Amino acid sequence: MELKAKVKTDIEIAQEAKMQPIVDVAAKVGLGEDDLELYGKYKGKISAHTIKKLQTKENGKIILVTSINPTPAGEGKSTVTVGLADALNRLGKKAMVAMREPSLGPTMGIKGGATGGGYSQVLPMEDINLHFTGDLHAITTANNALSALIDNHLQQGNRLKIDQRRIVWKRAVDLNDRALRKVIVGLGGPMQGVPREDGFDITVASEIMAVLCLAKDLQDLKRRLKEIVVAYNINKKPVTVGDLGVEGTLTLLLKDAVKPNLVQTLEHTPALIHGGPFANIAHGCNSVIATTTAAKLADYVVTEAGFGADLGAEKFLHIKARSAGFKPEAVVIVATIRALKMHGGMKKSELTTENIAALTAGFANLKKHIETIQSFGLPLVVAVNRFITDTEEEIKALIDWCSEQNVSVALTEVWEKGGEGGVELAEKLLEMMKRQKSDFHPLYELSNSLEEKICTVAKKVYGAKAVDFSAKAKKQLTEFEQYGWGSLPVCMAKTQYSLSDDPKKVGRPTNFTITIRELKPSIGAGFIVALTGDVMTMPGLPKEPAALKMDVDENGHAVGLF
Amino acid sequence: MELKAKVKTDIEIAQEAKMQPIVDVAAKVGLGEDDLELYGKYKGKISAHTIKKLQTKENGKIILVTSINPTPAGEGKSTVTVGLADALNRLGKKAMVAMREPSLGPTMGIKGGATGGGYSQVLPMEDINLHFTGDLHAITTANNALSALIDNHLQQGNRLKIDQRRIVWKRAVDLNDRALRKVIVGLGGPMQGVPREDGFDITVASEIMAVLCLAKDLQDLKRRLKEIVVAYNINKKPVTVGDLGVEGTLTLLLKDAVKPNLVQTLEHTPALIHGGPFANIAHGCNSVIATTTAAKLADYVVTEAGFGADLGAEKFLHIKARSAGFKPEAVVIVATIRALKMHGGMKKSELTTENIAALTAGFANLKKHIETIQSFGLPLVVAVNRFITDTEEEIKALIDWCSEQNVSVALTEVWEKGGEGGVELAEKLLEMMKRQKSDFHPLYELSNSLEEKICTVAKKVYGAKAVDFSAKAKKQLTEFEQYGWGSLPVCMAKTQYSLSDDPKKVGRPTNFTITIRELKPSIGAGFIVALTGDVMTMPGLPKEPAALKMDVDENGHAVGLF
Repeated sequence: MELKAKVKTDIEIAQEAKMQPIVDVAAKVGLGEDDLELYGKYKGKISAHTIKKLQTKENGKIILVTSINPTPAGEGKSTVTVGLADALNRLGKKAMVAMREPSLGPTMGIKGGATGGGYSQVLPMEDINLHFTGDLHAITTANNALSALIDNHLQQGNRLKIDQRRIVWKRAVDLNDRALRKVIVGLGGPMQGVPREDGFDITVASEIMAVLCLAKDLQDLKRRLKEIVVAYNINKKPVTVGDLGVEGTLTLLLKDAVKPNLVQTLEHTPALIHGGPFANIAHGCNSVIATTTAAKLADYVVTEAGFGADLGAEKFLHIKARSAGFKPEAVVIVATIRALKMHGGMKKSELTTENIAALTAGFANLKKHIETIQSFGLPLVVAVNRFITDTEEEIKALIDWCSEQNVSVALTEVWEKGGEGGVELAEKLLEMMKRQKSDFHPLYELSNSLEEKICTVAKKVYGAKAVDFSAKAKKQLTEFEQYGWGSLPVCMAKTQYSLSDDPKKVGRPTNFTITIRELKPSIGAGFIVALTGDVMTMPGLPKEPAALKMDVDENGHAVGLF
Repeated sequence: MELKAKVKTDIEIAQEAKMQPIVDVAAKVGLGEDDLELYGKYKGKISAHTIKKLQTKENGKIILVTSINPTPAGEGKSTVTVGLADALNRLGKKAMVAMREPSLGPTMGIKGGATGGGYSQVLPMEDINLHFTGDLHAITTANNALSALIDNHLQQGNRLKIDQRRIVWKRAVDLNDRALRKVIVGLGGPMQGVPREDGFDITVASEIMAVLCLAKDLQDLKRRLKEIVVAYNINKKPVTVGDLGVEGTLTLLLKDAVKPNLVQTLEHTPALIHGGPFANIAHGCNSVIATTTAAKLADYVVTEAGFGADLGAEKFLHIKARSAGFKPEAVVIVATIRALKMHGGMKKSELTTENIAALTAGFANLKKHIETIQSFGLPLVVAVNRFITDTEEEIKALIDWCSEQNVSVALTEVWEKGGEGGVELAEKLLEMMKRQKSDFHPLYELSNSLEEKICTVAKKVYGAKAVDFSAKAKKQLTEFEQYGWGSLPVCMAKTQYSLSDDPKKVGRPTNFTITIRELKPSIGAGFIVALTGDVMTMPGLPKEPAALKMDVDENGHAVGLF
């Protein structure tokens, strides 16, 4: 995250913070004790009856935080999301945060959390980064219960004539574990199941995570679970969870996980932290239930989507907002000097040196994302998320450039100063929203063919010249339309580091072709994944995993978590 | 469970029950709100600082509920445990329940829970049988994090020179999933790990579950985790969690799971439901922390141990009580007419027919368990747990026989009548405890050799004539003494259906030999497992799993759970 000299670590700041009881935080948005299912004093799930009760209320304004194509270290989108909501509250507005919940895999792998940073964090940081309220464990369990039921179906006679070579449902663990990517299960003879190839995804890559995040309520969750395609039968026809008849048991396992989790920021702003699907093979946004509930409770909901605007924002707008039936009012594009310099051709190791020329060359990447957000009809503000290594000259160059482009821009220092460091951004945003109303419209219609939808995203959002479909992808386009999946939106799986499908092409590449290698149906989630390259759905641990430094002190507090 | 005509199902009784807020239940044993970490209104974990604070208090009396060798359907030990505590409270005593928490695997496999039955249940039954407070998920995660760290160690250069053919640590899921018993992981080339044989146990069979259940506090948990043997190196020397340096991270993952869970019975008796290790390859008792905490809070703690007195009680006394440093005051041996008739030679399908001769022949099994408990120096009462199919003649025969043997006996009808149905048992027990003080002493000393310890249990508890050790077991006896493991207690893995190692030998077999096939070190838990036959550490799902009937209704309530 952002580097500062001699400052406290995130966990030090979090552990020193004095939290308010979550019932007091809930009271700020009109919720009473009966609206909460408490998990300790500082966490609570919003009750199902409360979510139902809220449905008749009017929606607050949804503000999406996205970014330019990021560096591997991230540009502080979560930090800005938290800081912006805190700043809006400082300005007397009623604002809430709606964010994704972290996975244990990356937490134990590479030092770094998903709860913001510095003085813009959500709390209790330790809990949220460990087991939290058990949502991811419930999803892992539902995922693997489905696998066990599929394998048991094979073992008990295979009534559905599932082709054991064409089972597409994989097992899951919420860990980074490369040795589970490719496995053989069912070994040991006839009493130990039917041998077959299988693999494990990290839980956030499970379709059940995407389903949970797009479901409107428990019944919608069940309907979506029922439609998940788990395999193909010997006639190559899809076999679904509904065919197995187990959507009820999966829903039962998820009945609490589907309720959003209320926590607070360091400045006691209410935050719903709920769901966290991958931003490549899934849509990378927190749950629809959390975002819509926050919109009923607050006047302003600040939410974010994974990776840059080409991935997260595009999916937020084409998949999540469309499916949930809401429209965002404005977008914040987070830009950092160091990422822009990388887009201007600098090496990662040199990013701490001032380089106005590289920075200026990198503006092209930001420019493309501005154009994309504008093409969706959305007002926007650029947030310059300040890092200690940024020079005054560099910041001035970026702000001047935005002004020349007639784009609203604000310097944010939320990492160092919390909400105070986001006040300028909040003011610019409110001013912008007064000046320009959201005229949100998707770039493609669901009635377009799958091919047309993919080409629209590739050309209009990425700036590609053309789209190549592999022979396999072409065949799948035909098959998927035949299966009746043609009217679903597409979910692009592409590198986050480039607008193109080549991570090395920084800046604003032109004249490039996007290659679609393969399609993957996520019928329960309600989208077709288009894979542009190898997508890692199970990360590995590094040589020195963060886990080696983790511990608990004598008082039961986490050590070395961040 | 017990069969009754036209009665409500367990889940109907549970869902109709009006629970008290858990803070009110806690108040009955002197706990305030600050002593609890709430999980909703009806569940709470006891805070670490409260457990510490209680340590100076005097212990209440611990009563162990065990049984004769059971039938596959179980004899209602949990039901009697709950009903007895309720009955003690009805008699004006301050009693608590300390029981195991259920695993999702059996819940989704075969209809049947682990929260008692009828009018002697613990609540909220739905939650306890599903994710509860996430303890089992935390254990699964810690178990699999350890596996991922082992495989990552191989991948990153294998500094410890682990022999990949001799990794004994297995992965885990809290499900019945036979296809995971034997797997190959690490396939797919050099970037996907080192290929090797592996397997998954059900979470309750993980050594981490046994460790959590025997730990006295968080520091003791860490010490035990550190000692777990995960593999052998190329020189055949044990490799531990401590060698990998990851005991801190495992402890961090378990820091909340180690706190006992407070719930209530249908009659609002406080109940600690915490931990649930297998009763074959582990010791089959709820956690030491829960039992000792309950003993600090209540005057009487009613607890149970898995399977019959030859397995659960023997391990409770030799492993748990010795490790925790407490002594039980009395034992209840649950006997049922149907199980005794099976021990008298009747087939399972005929058990509903009156048969005094078979019943009388079956008394021999009960007799042996009575002798065993007496040999530990413990006062006991036999609880005749009534089933609808029992005839008055049969019950009279059993009660008369107990009287002839000079053994205290009581008829219990706790399934049908709750605490009221356990009052006679409670009265007999209190009377017995007045008359006879516990003179608890183990049957072997820790300073005995492993071989001597195994022989003592086989001969004194099972009634075996001799013990045979396989060539492998003999070799291991020598090796284990060399590794410094000789002073640990032994944990016998044997069929629960017979006193011998042959499930078909019912009643009180004599003149039989116990064969020890293999030893297994559980150094973190602190015992050496002696395997007498194949032990299933990963169950399979039946042809029609209970999962097929589970669902959630429109109000979010479980359907078909039991």
